[in-house]
Amino acid sequence: MDLNADLGEGFGRWHLTEDAALLDLVTSANVACGFHAGDPLTMRQVCATAAAKGVSVGAQVGYRDLAGFGRRYIAYEPAELAADVLYQLAALDGIARTAGTRVTYVKPHGALYHAAAREPAQAGAVVDAVAAYDPALPVLTLPGSRLMEVATEKGLRAVPEAFLDRAYTPDGGLVPRGQRGAVIHDAAEVTARAVRMAAEGTVVAADGSVVRVAAESFCLHGDTPAAVDVGRRVRTALEEAGITVAPFVTVG
Amino acid sequence: MDLNADLGEGFGRWHLTEDAALLDLVTSANVACGFHAGDPLTMRQVCATAAAKGVSVGAQVGYRDLAGFGRRYIAYEPAELAADVLYQLAALDGIARTAGTRVTYVKPHGALYHAAAREPAQAGAVVDAVAAYDPALPVLTLPGSRLMEVATEKGLRAVPEAFLDRAYTPDGGLVPRGQRGAVIHDAAEVTARAVRMAAEGTVVAADGSVVRVAAESFCLHGDTPAAVDVGRRVRTALEEAGITVAPFVTVG
Amino acid sequence: MDLNADLGEGFGRWHLTEDAALLDLVTSANVACGFHAGDPLTMRQVCATAAAKGVSVGAQVGYRDLAGFGRRYIAYEPAELAADVLYQLAALDGIARTAGTRVTYVKPHGALYHAAAREPAQAGAVVDAVAAYDPALPVLTLPGSRLMEVATEKGLRAVPEAFLDRAYTPDGGLVPRGQRGAVIHDAAEVTARAVRMAAEGTVVAADGSVVRVAAESFCLHGDTPAAVDVGRRVRTALEEAGITVAPFVTVG
Amino acid sequence: MDLNADLGEGFGRWHLTEDAALLDLVTSANVACGFHAGDPLTMRQVCATAAAKGVSVGAQVGYRDLAGFGRRYIAYEPAELAADVLYQLAALDGIARTAGTRVTYVKPHGALYHAAAREPAQAGAVVDAVAAYDPALPVLTLPGSRLMEVATEKGLRAVPEAFLDRAYTPDGGLVPRGQRGAVIHDAAEVTARAVRMAAEGTVVAADGSVVRVAAESFCLHGDTPAAVDVGRRVRTALEEAGITVAPFVTVG
Repeated sequence: MDLNADLGEGFGRWHLTEDAALLDLVTSANVACGFHAGDPLTMRQVCATAAAKGVSVGAQVGYRDLAGFGRRYIAYEPAELAADVLYQLAALDGIARTAGTRVTYVKPHGALYHAAAREPAQAGAVVDAVAAYDPALPVLTLPGSRLMEVATEKGLRAVPEAFLDRAYTPDGGLVPRGQRGAVIHDAAEVTARAVRMAAEGTVVAADGSVVRVAAESFCLHGDTPAAVDVGRRVRTALEEAGITVAPFVTVG
Repeated sequence: MDLNADLGEGFGRWHLTEDAALLDLVTSANVACGFHAGDPLTMRQVCATAAAKGVSVGAQVGYRDLAGFGRRYIAYEPAELAADVLYQLAALDGIARTAGTRVTYVKPHGALYHAAAREPAQAGAVVDAVAAYDPALPVLTLPGSRLMEVATEKGLRAVPEAFLDRAYTPDGGLVPRGQRGAVIHDAAEVTARAVRMAAEGTVVAADGSVVRVAAESFCLHGDTPAAVDVGRRVRTALEEAGITVAPFVTVG
Repeated sequence: MDLNADLGEGFGRWHLTEDAALLDLVTSANVACGFHAGDPLTMRQVCATAAAKGVSVGAQVGYRDLAGFGRRYIAYEPAELAADVLYQLAALDGIARTAGTRVTYVKPHGALYHAAAREPAQAGAVVDAVAAYDPALPVLTLPGSRLMEVATEKGLRAVPEAFLDRAYTPDGGLVPRGQRGAVIHDAAEVTARAVRMAAEGTVVAADGSVVRVAAESFCLHGDTPAAVDVGRRVRTALEEAGITVAPFVTVG
Repeated sequence: MDLNADLGEGFGRWHLTEDAALLDLVTSANVACGFHAGDPLTMRQVCATAAAKGVSVGAQVGYRDLAGFGRRYIAYEPAELAADVLYQLAALDGIARTAGTRVTYVKPHGALYHAAAREPAQAGAVVDAVAAYDPALPVLTLPGSRLMEVATEKGLRAVPEAFLDRAYTPDGGLVPRGQRGAVIHDAAEVTARAVRMAAEGTVVAADGSVVRVAAESFCLHGDTPAAVDVGRRVRTALEEAGITVAPFVTVG
């Protein structure tokens, strides 16, 4: 099982993610590429550390929206979005290569993550950019998302991920944020869910039913000190349960 | 002899350079990389056209300053500048590769061009970025500039360029803009200078003396319709004088 | 009747609108405020010229999206949008006051214009910002738009505008761009429509029916030399038809 | 004696200054205006809190450089700089007025603070902007700076400030950062210096000599929790020494 988290999400003087601590926990680092967060120097530093620790580097591509941190939906033209994604992916990959590693996957960020899960046009733009750059790169996304469909149709590998601290609906979707119980705050419960999902491929949904979750990666949140602690517990619990924690794709 | 010009210097809705016309004239295109100008979609389109016409693509890297078009000196820390240059270079190269070509040289833009010609720290930052990315990439710069020195010391090829419409001082420098006669507007004179520089490697300086100009490329200005006309005359005159007009470095 | 046009829509080195020519034609200038276009120096220059020519200055507020020229819908939170609108409005008004005039109305730009015409939340955010800044400022918008409703409810004056070069549907809406005949290119026809709308308050819709158009201002497009010519004809025709061309609101 | 600190220096998702804690300590808040930091919603929130607590609001104007946090010198043309300063000042003042207060002074930020202290052109641009907007607004700056000279010449009030945690040279300047002992980290020493400067108008310089410091405001640093603690001690010590802590200029 792979553990991924967003990293490098500062910008210039501003810091957000606990990059150093997270790079000791995760096996895949979703590195911000400069459009929603992530200045070039930070990108360089995160890539160097990831390379030293054997963590896979993914391009966390986002909308061009520093003020909104890429969390506001933007109605891009597909050609513009594909070009913006390609630009970010290429920039990070070039930087990663100077650090002795390279980009091994792509994960859309924030509002683009959700739009690409839902809209064929935005999903298609992301897939076009990745396929144009390197069709061997997988995309990391929600199981059953539009992005997963479009990527698969175009011959890209699509890697499904699960969210350890989010409640699931009986049909395998996420309980929307804002609804009661949508986010699970108890570290022990998050950890138990991780082990169950990794060992059995199931989760107990909000209504008590048991749902299959076909995930090859677990998403950890990286922007709080608490998240680092939760991540550490999850990793330890997985390893104690005999589950190998390793990237879903590596440089080699 | 190579002819280079700045291209792709629009941004979103705004257009500046006569990209299509210039790509019929020049042999090397200095493509803006998004920091002083150049949105990703324009970069993609310019690269596609350049590839189709056999024009070499150079990374025209600049300061992060859209409002100032990269023409205002910025006192970057060297590590930040190197990262910004690397980011732009990698982004353009990745885009160029999806268009079937690649970046074959680097030319700093505007205030960075002048700062790297003068300051060891900024010259060093540019050289560090290029060397980290691909030490086989040449940098295009002023003869005798600090950037030329630092690049050569670090093992990069430095390609000297000349300016056809700028007056020269007796020691081979440029008469500063703002001084009388600094810019030559007469197309016939510009054309005659081009042929002389290409054929004999000399130019008549502002004081009437003859100065050696060791250029492997001539810089054309690309942001006016008049410049396109001048460029066409220069190219025709060079070819009629039996001078081969070709890139100083090619993809092959 | 008032004539309005977008102005000051360059940014730094890039120019777009024919500001000087348009300020001789229009009675209300929608001045870009820096978020989709419009650098502070241009804002200052446009305000100075508008003041000298007695043209009313409106705040053309837009999304924070230079790369998309404010033409891409952005799913702002209302509080963020209200703050962004207020910031732009205050900045332009302060600049206008140093030029001896002031902002006398607000007109949303591009995708915000359309979103505020349709979505209560974005309409409400625009109205909140204007009401907080100065409840005496009118907003310029489409007749029947959500923005018109919300503004009126909150006690703001809402000024309806018509588009001279756009075809109308039988119910008084605009034929969507992209449909055949949506944009009227013939200058004589545009001019005739202007006179009819001003004199009779009606327009011939795309299906031949006659529709009432209750406009207090006509919107001219300002980003092409042809538009300047059309604008000149419209103004002349209106004046020859005995219609007074004057701002719908003035500084005095 | 006035206590000032930089506030509102986050941007969107990123936070930096301890705004709430500092607004309980300082009497003047230097509010970032959006160019080096400070999104409009944060500006609105800081102004509302400042108004509620009776803290004076100053416009902390900076270079247009989010990536560099306004700490990198930029060689602006004076007209561009004046327009950028005016834009920021007007935007904040408009926002402050909707919160029931207004901007009562201007303090340049970061590299602009230092450039305006040194260069007549940049000092002049700042003064031109302030004088155009409201010649009754004072500027807060270093004693003896070029900005103080130019402001005074143009009829603006210039308010000198002192730095409590910086060592002074025998001629009343600051020991440059980077030199040994330039920054004083001991809270007790900082507090003692504050009381001495406020009561006697003197400070012990790095060489042991006693130097006059004519300050009407003390600058506190606001970007660390420790700074809040130091600020609290300073304020308490000043009040215990019988020194009135109050803004140097108020709205009334």
